[in-house]
Amino acid sequence: MAVTVTVLPDGRRLEVPQGMLLLDVVAEAGQPVEAVCAGAGTCGKCRIRVKGSCSPVTEDEQAALSPAELAEGVRLACRAAAAGDCEVEVLSPLVKGHPRILTDADMPDFRREPRVARAVWDVPPQGGAADLALLGVTPPDADLAAVRETALALRGRFGPATAVLYEGREVLEVQAGEGLAGLFGMAVDLGTTTIAAWLMDLEKGQEVARASALNPQVVHGGDVISRLTHAVEGGGLEELHRELVRVFNLLTAELARQAGVHPHRIYHLVVAANSTMQHFLLRVDPTGLSRAPFRPAFRESPRLRARDLGLALNPGAVVELVPGIAGFVGGDTVAAVLATGQDRTTKATCLLDLGTNGEIVAGWRGRLVACSTAAGPAFEGARISQGMRGDKGAIEAIRIDGQVHLKVIGDAPPAGICGSGLIDAGAELARVGVLDETGRVRSPEECRDFLPPAVLGRLVPGEAGTWSFVLAPAGIARSGRPVLLTQKDVRELQSAKGAIVAGARLALAYLGLEEAQLDEVILAGAFGTYVRPAAAAAVGLIPMAPEERIRSAGNAAGAGARMFLLSRSEARRARDIARRTEHLDLANHPDFVEQFMTGMYFPRVGPAGPPETSPKEA
Amino acid sequence: MAVTVTVLPDGRRLEVPQGMLLLDVVAEAGQPVEAVCAGAGTCGKCRIRVKGSCSPVTEDEQAALSPAELAEGVRLACRAAAAGDCEVEVLSPLVKGHPRILTDADMPDFRREPRVARAVWDVPPQGGAADLALLGVTPPDADLAAVRETALALRGRFGPATAVLYEGREVLEVQAGEGLAGLFGMAVDLGTTTIAAWLMDLEKGQEVARASALNPQVVHGGDVISRLTHAVEGGGLEELHRELVRVFNLLTAELARQAGVHPHRIYHLVVAANSTMQHFLLRVDPTGLSRAPFRPAFRESPRLRARDLGLALNPGAVVELVPGIAGFVGGDTVAAVLATGQDRTTKATCLLDLGTNGEIVAGWRGRLVACSTAAGPAFEGARISQGMRGDKGAIEAIRIDGQVHLKVIGDAPPAGICGSGLIDAGAELARVGVLDETGRVRSPEECRDFLPPAVLGRLVPGEAGTWSFVLAPAGIARSGRPVLLTQKDVRELQSAKGAIVAGARLALAYLGLEEAQLDEVILAGAFGTYVRPAAAAAVGLIPMAPEERIRSAGNAAGAGARMFLLSRSEARRARDIARRTEHLDLANHPDFVEQFMTGMYFPRVGPAGPPETSPKEA
Repeated sequence: MAVTVTVLPDGRRLEVPQGMLLLDVVAEAGQPVEAVCAGAGTCGKCRIRVKGSCSPVTEDEQAALSPAELAEGVRLACRAAAAGDCEVEVLSPLVKGHPRILTDADMPDFRREPRVARAVWDVPPQGGAADLALLGVTPPDADLAAVRETALALRGRFGPATAVLYEGREVLEVQAGEGLAGLFGMAVDLGTTTIAAWLMDLEKGQEVARASALNPQVVHGGDVISRLTHAVEGGGLEELHRELVRVFNLLTAELARQAGVHPHRIYHLVVAANSTMQHFLLRVDPTGLSRAPFRPAFRESPRLRARDLGLALNPGAVVELVPGIAGFVGGDTVAAVLATGQDRTTKATCLLDLGTNGEIVAGWRGRLVACSTAAGPAFEGARISQGMRGDKGAIEAIRIDGQVHLKVIGDAPPAGICGSGLIDAGAELARVGVLDETGRVRSPEECRDFLPPAVLGRLVPGEAGTWSFVLAPAGIARSGRPVLLTQKDVRELQSAKGAIVAGARLALAYLGLEEAQLDEVILAGAFGTYVRPAAAAAVGLIPMAPEERIRSAGNAAGAGARMFLLSRSEARRARDIARRTEHLDLANHPDFVEQFMTGMYFPRVGPAGPPETSPKEA
Repeated sequence: MAVTVTVLPDGRRLEVPQGMLLLDVVAEAGQPVEAVCAGAGTCGKCRIRVKGSCSPVTEDEQAALSPAELAEGVRLACRAAAAGDCEVEVLSPLVKGHPRILTDADMPDFRREPRVARAVWDVPPQGGAADLALLGVTPPDADLAAVRETALALRGRFGPATAVLYEGREVLEVQAGEGLAGLFGMAVDLGTTTIAAWLMDLEKGQEVARASALNPQVVHGGDVISRLTHAVEGGGLEELHRELVRVFNLLTAELARQAGVHPHRIYHLVVAANSTMQHFLLRVDPTGLSRAPFRPAFRESPRLRARDLGLALNPGAVVELVPGIAGFVGGDTVAAVLATGQDRTTKATCLLDLGTNGEIVAGWRGRLVACSTAAGPAFEGARISQGMRGDKGAIEAIRIDGQVHLKVIGDAPPAGICGSGLIDAGAELARVGVLDETGRVRSPEECRDFLPPAVLGRLVPGEAGTWSFVLAPAGIARSGRPVLLTQKDVRELQSAKGAIVAGARLALAYLGLEEAQLDEVILAGAFGTYVRPAAAAAVGLIPMAPEERIRSAGNAAGAGARMFLLSRSEARRARDIARRTEHLDLANHPDFVEQFMTGMYFPRVGPAGPPETSPKEA
């Protein structure tokens, strides 16, 4: 039997078989929901609100949702099925129109020199010259598709003809007449966890829309290693590729909808991504990346059009990847260097591009050296027991005085902790003495002397004799259960920061720099955008750098991708950065383990007594 | 019910449904038979010999086949079906291994400089350079397929790796190790009626196999105009394209079989074809060619690989078309100029490239001018009542003294007349006075005074009060019925030669040349190969040129295609010829009609009396 499901917010109606899982219904309606656990019922992300006839609430949903949520009709899309006609509202869509994750780095000033441009010719009624030659395009720049398209567009007609050309040579589209309206480009920051996309008007050099999405590959694991394993040992390359193409197409549709532009008016796509994502997007075997010496199959973008990948832009759209440096220092890092201008200063700088992986670039006197660390996805909320992305309900900052003060995204009931909240919590808990120098969560017994009672009461027993800290008590939490920071969460934080600190120190040493000489530390990346510089310094993520020398560059990879898209000379500059940046292999570095261990420690530990100063307002 | 059919000569066995047409059975067995009329039962070409259980002989077969043939079990594949188990021998295969049609022009001396070559690199166990960069290949020369292939071949391994590169830049294939054996290229002369193909060893610069086939598009009409109509008005472009790809793949298989080479070892394909065939092969809309000013969508070959067309060579094989000059002067003409060296002489020359169309190139003092004439496919046996290709049984020469002497290909019973036979017949019949100056076949009454009785007796009544000439009487003819030359056949010959003569005269005039100044007339093309220069002169095909200045260049387009394949500098020379040859548009030339009318006349007419001299032995 077929039933009718209306999917909000778009309001699209679908006839589906009775009993169809709503996770599949909303995907078919083109409004997929986030589903980190791929329908295992464990992540609790795929929230929808259902009105009408729906299957009974399952045990998994009772565990994942609060009584208040259940009373409002909130369900998990991976557990609820259409029993009859119903209306479904997607609460956490995979693709978001104006996401917080994109809070941008401004792009610095640069010359707008789009490489895609329009050209109008007059095809004369006489003369036997070939159509393409009339357009000033000759092989080998003309490819088969260009010849086919030109022939179809002109079909022996004369009069004005319009072509969209890349670098004045390659034909992207040809139409009879002068009717082509609008040239747009799309810049994407393709991260392991999140994907951010911008639609740019190439002629005006301006942004016209933005959107973001969860990388749907998170179902195969949070980090690139698990994805590589899935691709290389699990034969999953094709699947990983298709997942990216599908979400790119959803993002394109969202951007086009926002701007009121047909996707075929998008002629240029620039993607900043790490090497693993580059391989997946292009469906290139990534085996070389999965074993020493971790060699990518390519660092510079091959010749590529949208049709080659099945991307729903103009079929002839030029697709370019920002070139990378090495197996684990990809185009996203190059884009970040481009946007922050680290290649143009003679100052001693250190860029920490912190996303699911941590990439570090040190620069001094015209030299650049890059390395990558397996920082893990802790900063994006993965592997943290109640971790979450920086969405509504995420604890993003914490301040402890007599009480515990939280800052929650969207001023909503706390639902979990995001990366910047994790750093903040680590910094504050170390400062007030809940954590010892090694990162151990002290027992209430040990803290009794110096913690105020309201804070002391937050320590509760955790697993295997450890203690957890209650960030948000059950009464104010969204799920009705407390939001905790466990000992294991602290260890994840320590491991991530240990790797970053070790990488930064070794990169600086490679250039002959000492930490104290640093003129500037630049925080970038999905996570780097939100962390408070003071907290980063406090937790020891940025050793020896005083707060005033730390600046946040926001989503620098995204800014770099847009610059690469909008400017020939910036694209050239990116290629130059990719070629001249030296690569430091941490995996084989003799000093790495020692630096990693040292970096795990908390720097300013208060083993006794109340804090000497109050932290600034978060 | 399924029955078993064994298809000879290959001996392949197929299980097919009872009642399946043998035309389809042999095609499915990969040994398709010629079928000019596409199964209409009218062309009589699709002869097979059947042993075993077959459907009864039809009326069409009784009309098309002689009693002797029927007694031998010869059938038409388009009319015979498998009634039970049987053995089928294909008598006239679509693809032929060593066809007469290819009797070659020798290639002149030239430097062998293949553009496809092998390169071996050593991939070091250390270092993070990208695989493709290790092979010395960088974008934009690297395309997506190259990156994918390299990644799959190397998969992070180290040690020797072998690449096949085009011009040292573009990757055609990559393999781990040094195991690649043999580099081959294929040259094709793609004609409107016939297709000739050569397999060349690129490293040795030598031919290793040759084959030919009927252009399967003949079912849509004999000339390019009917094919263009089918493509443009009948929506048949896709079909015309697929027919070419299919026959190319059959030719490839035949060449590979002969040479004992895997088709994946073929890395380079060069095709010499007229503009219409170029458009069909590449599936490019040919509307521009079908209406004034007859503009091709391309003249130079776009960037193209075998996989783009579904050609069964190495998927990365480079596909190149010899560039053309104008809508009806294509790459085949350029290849013919290349092979005959017409671009390198300061002499006054005229190249007649006579196939289904007639292309003419006049050259003098470094200038070249080309034009095309709608000569029609008369010279390839089409539109001639008993015309046929130059296969076994075709009358290729005729000599008349007291008797009529025939030369028949393969010394077989005469089955029809081919192009060179048509010219010869026209020349001889005009010489002895059977034809008057205007091409009218005289009645026996008019010829009684000067024709010997044995020849006079050959004149028989034709349609509508005209007379036909019996070339071969019923008693010696294959079908048991006489082979005739009708008045209509003579008119077809006149029309073809009138167009060629007009084109040649106007091309010479364009260069300021008079016919008498001609140093050399070069006959080329499928037909030009076989015509006797003396007969061509006698019939007035080559006005004013004495026999000794006429030379036959054979299949010059095929020779040019092989030179283009084997040599970078010859390919460059071909591009230069294509660019600098001027084009003369005959359709709009004020003097064309007059020259055409004049050219239709026979030059040396014997209105009375016996011939003054005997013709030389044919």
